[in-house]
This record gives sequence, C-alpha cells and structure tokens, in this order.
Amino acid sequence: MTAVQSRAVSPRTAPTENPDELARLVVTCIDRPGVVARVSSFLAEHAANIVQSDQDTTGPSGGRFFLRIVFHLYDLAAQLPALEHAFAVEVARPLGADYSFRPVAARTRTAVFASRHDHCLLDLLWRTRRGELPIDVVQVVSNHPDLADDVRAFGVPFTHIPVGRGPQAKEDAERRQLELVRGCGTELVVLARYMQILSANFLHSVGAPVINIHHSFLPAFAGAGPYSRAKERGVKLIGATAHYATEDLDEGPIIEQDVVRVDHRATVAELTRRGADIERTVLARAVAWHCDDRVLVDGRTTVVF
Amino acid sequence: MTAVQSRAVSPRTAPTENPDELARLVVTCIDRPGVVARVSSFLAEHAANIVQSDQDTTGPSGGRFFLRIVFHLYDLAAQLPALEHAFAVEVARPLGADYSFRPVAARTRTAVFASRHDHCLLDLLWRTRRGELPIDVVQVVSNHPDLADDVRAFGVPFTHIPVGRGPQAKEDAERRQLELVRGCGTELVVLARYMQILSANFLHSVGAPVINIHHSFLPAFAGAGPYSRAKERGVKLIGATAHYATEDLDEGPIIEQDVVRVDHRATVAELTRRGADIERTVLARAVAWHCDDRVLVDGRTTVVF
Amino acid sequence: MTAVQSRAVSPRTAPTENPDELARLVVTCIDRPGVVARVSSFLAEHAANIVQSDQDTTGPSGGRFFLRIVFHLYDLAAQLPALEHAFAVEVARPLGADYSFRPVAARTRTAVFASRHDHCLLDLLWRTRRGELPIDVVQVVSNHPDLADDVRAFGVPFTHIPVGRGPQAKEDAERRQLELVRGCGTELVVLARYMQILSANFLHSVGAPVINIHHSFLPAFAGAGPYSRAKERGVKLIGATAHYATEDLDEGPIIEQDVVRVDHRATVAELTRRGADIERTVLARAVAWHCDDRVLVDGRTTVVF
Amino acid sequence: MTAVQSRAVSPRTAPTENPDELARLVVTCIDRPGVVARVSSFLAEHAANIVQSDQDTTGPSGGRFFLRIVFHLYDLAAQLPALEHAFAVEVARPLGADYSFRPVAARTRTAVFASRHDHCLLDLLWRTRRGELPIDVVQVVSNHPDLADDVRAFGVPFTHIPVGRGPQAKEDAERRQLELVRGCGTELVVLARYMQILSANFLHSVGAPVINIHHSFLPAFAGAGPYSRAKERGVKLIGATAHYATEDLDEGPIIEQDVVRVDHRATVAELTRRGADIERTVLARAVAWHCDDRVLVDGRTTVVF
Repeated sequence: MTAVQSRAVSPRTAPTENPDELARLVVTCIDRPGVVARVSSFLAEHAANIVQSDQDTTGPSGGRFFLRIVFHLYDLAAQLPALEHAFAVEVARPLGADYSFRPVAARTRTAVFASRHDHCLLDLLWRTRRGELPIDVVQVVSNHPDLADDVRAFGVPFTHIPVGRGPQAKEDAERRQLELVRGCGTELVVLARYMQILSANFLHSVGAPVINIHHSFLPAFAGAGPYSRAKERGVKLIGATAHYATEDLDEGPIIEQDVVRVDHRATVAELTRRGADIERTVLARAVAWHCDDRVLVDGRTTVVF
Repeated sequence: MTAVQSRAVSPRTAPTENPDELARLVVTCIDRPGVVARVSSFLAEHAANIVQSDQDTTGPSGGRFFLRIVFHLYDLAAQLPALEHAFAVEVARPLGADYSFRPVAARTRTAVFASRHDHCLLDLLWRTRRGELPIDVVQVVSNHPDLADDVRAFGVPFTHIPVGRGPQAKEDAERRQLELVRGCGTELVVLARYMQILSANFLHSVGAPVINIHHSFLPAFAGAGPYSRAKERGVKLIGATAHYATEDLDEGPIIEQDVVRVDHRATVAELTRRGADIERTVLARAVAWHCDDRVLVDGRTTVVF
Repeated sequence: MTAVQSRAVSPRTAPTENPDELARLVVTCIDRPGVVARVSSFLAEHAANIVQSDQDTTGPSGGRFFLRIVFHLYDLAAQLPALEHAFAVEVARPLGADYSFRPVAARTRTAVFASRHDHCLLDLLWRTRRGELPIDVVQVVSNHPDLADDVRAFGVPFTHIPVGRGPQAKEDAERRQLELVRGCGTELVVLARYMQILSANFLHSVGAPVINIHHSFLPAFAGAGPYSRAKERGVKLIGATAHYATEDLDEGPIIEQDVVRVDHRATVAELTRRGADIERTVLARAVAWHCDDRVLVDGRTTVVF
Repeated sequence: MTAVQSRAVSPRTAPTENPDELARLVVTCIDRPGVVARVSSFLAEHAANIVQSDQDTTGPSGGRFFLRIVFHLYDLAAQLPALEHAFAVEVARPLGADYSFRPVAARTRTAVFASRHDHCLLDLLWRTRRGELPIDVVQVVSNHPDLADDVRAFGVPFTHIPVGRGPQAKEDAERRQLELVRGCGTELVVLARYMQILSANFLHSVGAPVINIHHSFLPAFAGAGPYSRAKERGVKLIGATAHYATEDLDEGPIIEQDVVRVDHRATVAELTRRGADIERTVLARAVAWHCDDRVLVDGRTTVVF
C-alpha cells in the first residue's frame, strides 16, 4: 500500500475543472464488506481522483450495495478503456458486480415519443438547447403530425408514425418505431406524454431504458383521466410522476414526483394546465438525473443519489 | 333602497376590532341570481357591516351556491338572535337555503378520539392552550389508557373506553362513546389517529361532524399500513389527508392534504416519523378551518374559503 | 326590493357557461358599511348574476375595501357599456370608489421586455399560444437582437432597441420604447428578465402597469447577482419574486413568490438554472392573476384573490 | 491488498442491524487524490464494513474534502478506541485531516435555552421522548420562569437565570449559564427562541456548538421583528432558518431553512402562528442532522449530507 499512500498525500498539483477529464463510475452488487475500499483503492492505484461519491446499502440485510463515483483522470479519453478493462477483471468480476463507466461530458442519445401535448416535449428540447440537459435528441416520434414544425425548428428530426386501430396496426407501428429508434443508436427513450401504451415486446426490444411521465401522483389515479378523477375526489394537491416504463402499466420504478396545490375553484381544465407545469418539471429532473447516472434501480424502486 | 344607500355611504364612524362584535354567516343553496344581493342587503338593512366575504358557485350549471361572510354588528350578543330569526324568515326560507350564524369569539366544543399515537392529540392540546385553535377540548376518549396523564396535564378529561373484540363489544363501546360525547355538548369530533373504525350508526348518531386524519395522501394508500406500502412502492413524497368521516372508509370529503419529500434512505420507521409531522399539521389546519366556518361540504368534496 | 326578490328566487332557467357573457367587476374604496350590499344589489337590479365574489378589508380600521366579482349578463357585449355608466353614477361616485369592468373573454394587450435570457420570454409565448394566458403579446422589445428569431416564430413582432451607455443614450432608448409601447395600445408591460433599470419617467409615462420578475426571494438578495450571493450565504432555498415595478428598485408591491430547495452541491450555474424554472413559473402566475383582475394593489403590498 | 480482497469478497455472513455496532466517521481535509481510498482501505483492513457513505469536494480547486461514513464493526464498544488511535496515526496525521468517530447509538448531551415561547422547546422535548431525536436534554435554561412546569413534566432540569439590564448583569448571567452548561457535560447548545443575544465570549467559552433558530428566511428580515416586517413588505411566503450561532448575529452558517405560504389576509399574529410551525420543524431537523453528523461546516456555509 506504500505507493498508494504516498500518492494520496501528495497535494493535488494541478487541480482541474476540465469536464473532459471527469467520468462517472456506478457499481451495484450484493452488499459485502470492503467494496468501497476495493473500488476506491482501484481508482487511486490508477491515478483516478474521486471528486464526489455516494454510497448506500438497501434492504434489511444481505441487501444491495449501490455506489456512484465521479472521478478525475488525466487524459481521460485515452485512459478510460484500459481503466475499464482493468476494473472488469480486478474488481467487478470477483465481486459479481454490475458497473458502468461514463465520461461526464458524454451526451445521452435520446429519442422522445409524443402525441399532441407539446409541453413536455418542447421543454425537453428547449432545456437541451440551453445546455441544461446532457442529451442529444436524435429523434422525435409521434402518432400525430401536429408538432412537426415545432420540433424541426430545433433542428431535430421528427417522424410521424400513425398508430391505427387494432393489434395488427399497433404491432406494425411499433415495428417501425423500433427500427427508427434502434437505427439511431438510442440510449434513452422518453415518453413525453405519449398517449399510447407500448407493448412488453417493444420495451424488451428497444434496447434502452424508457422513462415515462404520468400525470398524477402515483399510485393515486393510475390509469386514464387522472385530472378528472382528481377533481371528482376533491384532492387539494395534484402531481406528476416520472418512472421507468415496465410491462405493468404505471407500476414501474418511480424516479421523481412532485405536486402543486389546487383548490375547489380549479376546473378540470385548470388542473390540467397546472399539472402540465409539474409534468414538464418532473420529467426534466428525471431525465437529467438518469443521464447523470444518479438513478439506480432497486427492484421496484429507485435509489436516487 | 334609499335608507340602505344613505347608510352605506356614511363613513364608518367607529371602526372596531372588537372580536366580540364579529360573527360569521354561512349560506348554501341552489344557485340563483341575486343571492349575494339579498343576503348583503339584508345585512346592511340590519346594520351589520361585512368585513370579509367569499362566494363561489360550483358545478357546471344549476350548481350549488356557497357564501361565507364575516360581519360586524354592534352589541352582537344581544342582537344576534333577532338577526338570525329575521334572516330565517326573510332570506333563508324563500331561497330554500341552509345557513348558520356563529360569533367569531365562540369556541367549538370538541371531543378528541385517540389510541396510542400521541402526536396529533398533543398537538391539538398544545395549540388549543396557545390560543391557536378556537376550540375547547371537552373530552378525550381512547381505547388505550396510555395517554391519560399527558391529557390530564392539560386539564382535559380523559376517558378510557376499551374496545373488545367482536361486533357486540364494539357496539357496547360505541354506546358508551356516544353517551359520553353527546353528554358534553360536543359540536365536533376529531379522530386524532384513532385506530378503530367507527360504525355508520355512530356517525349518524353522534350529532356532530367527525374529522379524521388519514396517514397517506389519499386516494393513494387508502386503508391500512400506508407507510409500509409507500416504502414498497418507492414514492418520493408521503402525505396526510384530513377529511370528514363518512360510512365509506377513507372516502369522505377531503378538507386538507399535504406532503413531504422523502428519499430511498428513509426506512418505514422514518417515513412514519416524517409523516407524523405532516399528519399533525394537516389535522390542525383542518380543525382550525372547520371551526372558522371555512369548510363547506359540496357532495363528495369541499369548498374551502 | 320586491322586484329584486322575486327575480332572485326564480330558478336559474338557462344556466350558461358562455364565457362571452361573463365579466369581472373590481371595486376598491375606503371601507364603509353596506358596500357589498350596494354593489350586489346594483348588479341584481341590472340582471347581472354573481358567479363568484371575493371581498376583503385591510388595515386595522378605517381601512381599504377590496371587492372582485365575476358576473353573468345576457348579451354582455351590448349591455356592458350601459351597465358601466349606471354603475359610475349610482354606485362609484357616491362611494368615491375606484372600479373597473372587464369581459372575462377580453385579452390583455401585453408588451414584453427582454434581454438575452430566453426562459421567461419563451414561457410567456408558449403559454399564450397554448391558451393558458389571456394575453396578446403585441410587442417584444429587447436591448439585444439574440431572441429575434425565436420570438418571430410565434408570429410576434420583435424590436431591437439597443441601450447605449450614459444617461442620454438611455433616455433616447426609453423614448423609442415608449413610442413603440404606447403606439400599440399596450395594457400591460412585462419585464421578462430585462436587465436594464427603467427610469421613473418611463414608469410614469408608459400608461400601463409594469410587472417585473426578480431572481431572488425578495427582500433577500435585492439588487444584482442574487444567485452568487445566495451561494456565498449558503441558503437552502432559492426563489423568485414577481412584483409591480416602481421607482424604488425591487421595492414594488409583491404579486407572487416561490422557492425551490437547493443543496451545497449546487454551483452558481446550477442555482441559476434551477432559479430559472421558478422565475418563469412565478412570472406566469403573476401575469395570469393580474390579467384575471385578481391582484389589487394596497399601498406597498397586494391583495391577491 | 490480498488480505483485503479476500475479506471483501467473502459474503457478509452475519449481517447485522445491531445499532450498537454502528458508528460514524467524519473526515475533512484539503482535497487530495486518494483520500477515499485511504480511509476506506483503513476501515476494510480493520474489519469495519461501510454501510453508507457520502463524500464531496467543495470550492473551485484545491478545495475542501468532506467525507461521512457509517460503518459496522463487531464489538464496537471494545474496538473503537483502538480503531480511533490507529486512524489518527495512520490516516489523519499524514493527511492533516480533522476527523471524528462517534457510535450511532450515542446520544448528544444537549442544553436548551428558551425564553417565553414554548413551541420550539416543547417540540424538542416531545421528539426526544418519542425517540425521534438522538439527544438527552440535560438542562433547560431560561431567562423567564414561565416554562418551568412544562419542562419538569418531561423529567428535565429547568434553571431560571434572569438576565438583568446593562452589560454587567448580562455578564453575570452568562457566567452562571456557562457554569451550568459546562458543568453537565454539554455537547450541544440549542437556542429555542431564546430572545437574548449571547456574547462572543459566551460562544467561545461554552465549548460546544450552538444552534439558533431565526424566525425568518435569512438573509431576509435579519434582526428583530421579522413577522411585522414580512407583513409590511407583503411577502407571499414566510420562513425560518436554523444556523450555527457566531459572533455575527444572524450570519452564522445555515443548516436548514423552510417556508410556508401566506396571503394578504394573514395578520402579524397569524404570520407568527404559522411561522411557529416552521420554526419548530426546521429546528428539529437541524438538531437531528447535527447529531447525526450530517452537517459539516465549510467556512460561512454548510455541507449537509
């Protein structure tokens, strides 16, 4: 350990803010003693300096271990492949751990599905343009042509794939969607108020996580028409929920939720309008956190660092 | 209208802050043109000056009319009975309206039901002692003796009415509860985390509105064990709901709700603890608003002015 | 009162949701007994049915009276001028009251001032296009040309009026701004992160209320650089404040404020980004409420119904 | 590293929830590469298993390093002194780091200062009794006798130390306070709406951190009378701030803040009442987090893990 120690105490001679030399490492495994030590020693031995780290263990015991580290490495682009290979052999394999390395500067190739509501979609496009979201929107897919001009004004491809009635039409549409999405190297699919249910087959085949925004504070008002049902029930707060889409509709792991206060004066239209503000905000947070590797799935729930 | 007009324009010669001369009037009826005019003209003609008023009409059409007025009347205690009588004859009867008059200084005689959890109960007692709640707690009823000393330290009567198993035992307990509650002129019953379900018969016979606090953001996690279920579902906010108790458990008109943010680190015990803070706050607001005549029931929902 | 009474009790035979027959009346005056009665009787006598009303009296005594009424009147467009005239003569003059009538369907002609930040401006334009804000943006004025294309894509005129250095250049710019704003019948000016201070002369001459959004939770961090100062001070929440602009910078009556939680990890850039979300939301609420006649100025503060 | 590795991969044979075997380690130092590795390797080598860890680096570069670790160690009570000694020699000294070890089960000996307001004080006592706060209230000191009975009902010593007028009287009172507080091994002083300013000498001599609750959203309304000033300014949210007390009044590092919405109807008394709810909640959170070693001072601000 001598070498490690002497490196450790040497002052950081050239502190850097260079984001091109920052990367993230995420590790999940069965909890065991010494995992943090192994991972952090590995990084120290490879001259990677930990800038930020979060670690947690869930479950009553024998639970899951979750670790997210941001580290600095000189000449990251050149060094990362070797680091990754060494990590796989020296750390991940012995621990039986899942892991991923990702440069902080990398942008997530994202396909967005929408229908007619524009608020979530436009908000994602605008935040991306402002540099708030570390994504490239590589494709917008919609079952309606309405938003084509808005999307193209951002320089983003828009494809109208109508979804006909009946199972066959839906299957055909999904086939086209899958081709399109997989054809552009999509790393993330965002359902920005896409008003169609995607099949289990689609979710399995798309090869990327799918984030959905539901216009209620789940599990309240799961399913259709949440604002009408909220009005009927007379709730005093309405909300929105961003979650990973799974086969079980509205049951996927929740990433983020928020609510806004309403009163008896609010009509269903007003609830819809106020809810739209929450939907776009919650969805943007969920996408940002996902792309920042801060969201780790733990069974039916998430760890959000 | 001449007399009314000339009175109206005379400057308020002796403006008063005397709360003993303030009262509230609440009116609900089928919506019709001119109701505000009738009520406010009636008050003006009787030298009652409107200090604050809220009015709303709910429903798409042919809806319900809701009005809450705070007014000042010199020598209120002596004048109010006559005003009330005149109102019944001149305004309420022709309009087919429900109404109530209540001096602002009046305190609501309140019975509180509790079990073992102390947070909602003690909070009500504290707030009452501090003068925050316009209530007199005339009786605390519990199916457990645990909180007797705490309650009596506030100078409030505490009665332990155990609830045995089986329908007969429950019926017996409810009979004793009803006698006790009705015997002390109760105007409001508050279920401060009372962990027993009250029968429809009790609710019909008690002769006072019943406010319950449910430890979830209804309709999410209605029923038992909401914090455990919230943990399993991985929600990012937990909440509490104060509502009028009805025969349909957890389905009564909602008075107030609030939520607090939680994260994956929170255990069920921690959710329970954080939720307790929201429960007591939401319940206190609901009781305060109810006693301030700000909560008007509209079918399965409430208007809160 | 007979006629009024018999009209009052007749059931609403043709309930209407026709927004073209709804209008708002706002009244402010020195508080006096009978004002509500006079106003509501006046409306009832003129066959205007009150749909919603809010009234309050502020100040310890001899205070200000504030009333906002939404009413229905058949054939509103044809009847409103006569109603308004009668109100002026019969009610407002004797009471010495300020008042305004405004059809609910009327849209407020709005000029927006911006600099380089796009978030508040685009959000107003989006919301207007979605039908969320009852405004017509008749002009966007900026001291920078950067946002011209974005604005024109909404079909809204954009005028670049550069502001040079020194008092004379500023005066010249304001002269051009005033001509432009007054020339298009502006009823409301919104400063959507316009980074220039407008002179007292401008505010007096523009002939319309001016709403500003300040990027802090006033009175904290009034003046320049609020996010940097928030970071230095280590606050745990940041906020935004919409207020009417007055000669005293950042001192005008507050319309709306909101905050968002931040932690020590947030850099100034991240505070700025998170704050932008609050700024646009708070500004949109303030504009909506203002145009809905819900904001009544009361000295240095506001009554918001 | 072989021994470490082989220990690391061995499955956790006897996972424990025994809180008596959990401890926290907090480390702060100048940021350097390898600190996490050194600390975590040290723990692994000493058979301490990391259960949770948070690490962050603040400042643009050459900044401060902050680390908080919760670890499990068999037979903690017996092993901790040796672990601590080894850590000092092997890790802290070479790194020039500040650090502390503390068993999770340890309770912080806390003295609470109060005046006449009971809400913050009673809330702390009640939460402590419920087991929500890991503290023992060893002494309550007040410059008024009013709350003596309430405090003693919790079995907590109450000492009335009146504070006379003039500097000498104040100095005398502080001398008595210091004797009392230091005499009972106080590890934390909480000012629960103690309405006297403590001198720099007191703060330096008391030998424990001092947490104060200020009844405004600092830096807004620093100083006296925040609720009156909030009313005059017409703010739409009021708040409270828990911070470490320093010589600069209301300028110490902020631990936690929160706000609540108010409207124009709220009088100063109502603001005071609603604010009291926020004060007690914010103070309880600050105390809990402090005692949980989650609050690390970073110059004029805090890192809260």
